[in-house]
Amino acid sequence: MSANIERREFPILQYRQGQISEINDVVAAEYDLAIQINGKEFITLLCTPRSLENLVTGFLFSEGVIQHRDDLENLTINVEQKLAQVTLSNKAEFFLTGDKLFAQKTITTACGKGRSMLYMADVETLAERPENTFSLRAENVLALMAEFNRKSQLFLDTGGVHSCALSNGSELLTFEEDIGRHNALDKILGHAMMNDVPLEDKIVLTSGRISTEIVAKVARRGIPVIVSRSAPTSAAIEQAQTLGMTLVGFARGSKFNVYTNFSCLVRDETPN
Amino acid sequence: MSANIERREFPILQYRQGQISEINDVVAAEYDLAIQINGKEFITLLCTPRSLENLVTGFLFSEGVIQHRDDLENLTINVEQKLAQVTLSNKAEFFLTGDKLFAQKTITTACGKGRSMLYMADVETLAERPENTFSLRAENVLALMAEFNRKSQLFLDTGGVHSCALSNGSELLTFEEDIGRHNALDKILGHAMMNDVPLEDKIVLTSGRISTEIVAKVARRGIPVIVSRSAPTSAAIEQAQTLGMTLVGFARGSKFNVYTNFSCLVRDETPN
Repeated sequence: MSANIERREFPILQYRQGQISEINDVVAAEYDLAIQINGKEFITLLCTPRSLENLVTGFLFSEGVIQHRDDLENLTINVEQKLAQVTLSNKAEFFLTGDKLFAQKTITTACGKGRSMLYMADVETLAERPENTFSLRAENVLALMAEFNRKSQLFLDTGGVHSCALSNGSELLTFEEDIGRHNALDKILGHAMMNDVPLEDKIVLTSGRISTEIVAKVARRGIPVIVSRSAPTSAAIEQAQTLGMTLVGFARGSKFNVYTNFSCLVRDETPN
Repeated sequence: MSANIERREFPILQYRQGQISEINDVVAAEYDLAIQINGKEFITLLCTPRSLENLVTGFLFSEGVIQHRDDLENLTINVEQKLAQVTLSNKAEFFLTGDKLFAQKTITTACGKGRSMLYMADVETLAERPENTFSLRAENVLALMAEFNRKSQLFLDTGGVHSCALSNGSELLTFEEDIGRHNALDKILGHAMMNDVPLEDKIVLTSGRISTEIVAKVARRGIPVIVSRSAPTSAAIEQAQTLGMTLVGFARGSKFNVYTNFSCLVRDETPN
């Protein structure tokens, strides 16, 4: 299937300074991917239909369904049927009872019932991490975000998606987009997991705001730095402090804010 | 408690055109509100701690826990304990089994496990609606959005919240903010429900993007028009078409796009 399923054209009325025109507008597609696990209906993700394998694997890890790619025996995606069929290696371990999941829900900021059966509980264990020694060069932050912004053709066309990328601090390694900022991040993390990409020396870039859930998801993978185009929440800052992570926000043009771990920031004129 | 719990100050490093300064930044608070129903833990909402009663009532309606404010026997919120305790009028009807909820989850675009036990199922019933005869005056759209933008002091201070408002087409009637766009909408709808506000002749304004979940939530209350500062998804447009709703997006400055129900748009020079 072509990449055109990610965007759709619609006739619209465009009002501009008192003038009304009928034009065609490009709109981000919303695609409902049904995920089955071991033959049973699990969840439906509303997403952008690209990098669906990365999305499913990343999502399953984020939800605690799998810990490692070896937990995944098989993943088949039928794009036309909007169906992802997952078979787990250890069938016996899955399926917390519905009640148990139900009781542990946390709703994330943007919407629905949240993911994290895990993320609240394991913040303490996450705090036992190697010290974050990742030096962030200010000029690199700006350059990375500039490239990050340029890459999002789907955003430029539709205005309706979030982006996420993985970087080694000087270049972008992977880049994903999705109507949902969590999905975009899951796509990055799913790809990294399936390809055994070491993450302790990487940065996540995101277009979306940073909440505790985003911080926890990135922290759980041992990634020390998040750079966002947008705002963090107060709780995300505090959580990042506790975890020793570097949080950068409002990275736009020639500006950014560093909210934690100030000592990580270096500039070209500053001797290391 | 003062309104200051909605925002927090943090010392940050601000990088601007090669200069680094230490300043205090204002950040949107992320507040975890635990909701209990009939004494049992139900869910935790990550939100902005304002208009919490509106949030809880609106959320419960959106989730199908209540259909009407009479279903709510009591709601007590302890802001310091971050706890909302709900007692329902008809205790027997609540609590779908965990498994049943589990099987019916749909994840919304921005993140976690989604809300809608209901929204997919009831789109067909929603289609049996009175015809949408709400005339949208172009100049009013611009004026309403301008006032909407001015009202969001928390956004202006933090850059980290979404806004939502209810309007009769010429003025804003209610206005809410939240780190989550769904929460902001639930606050508006909760207030309307608790105050028996007629909704068939109202508009919802939102700063957030419009997905099918947003459309369904608004449609379920019989509201015929959504105006957003941001983008819709393809599925949201199609759903709004089916439901006969008017969808306006990218309403900014002197511009906006109308995606459905073109005949509703009138201009001052055009005779009605």
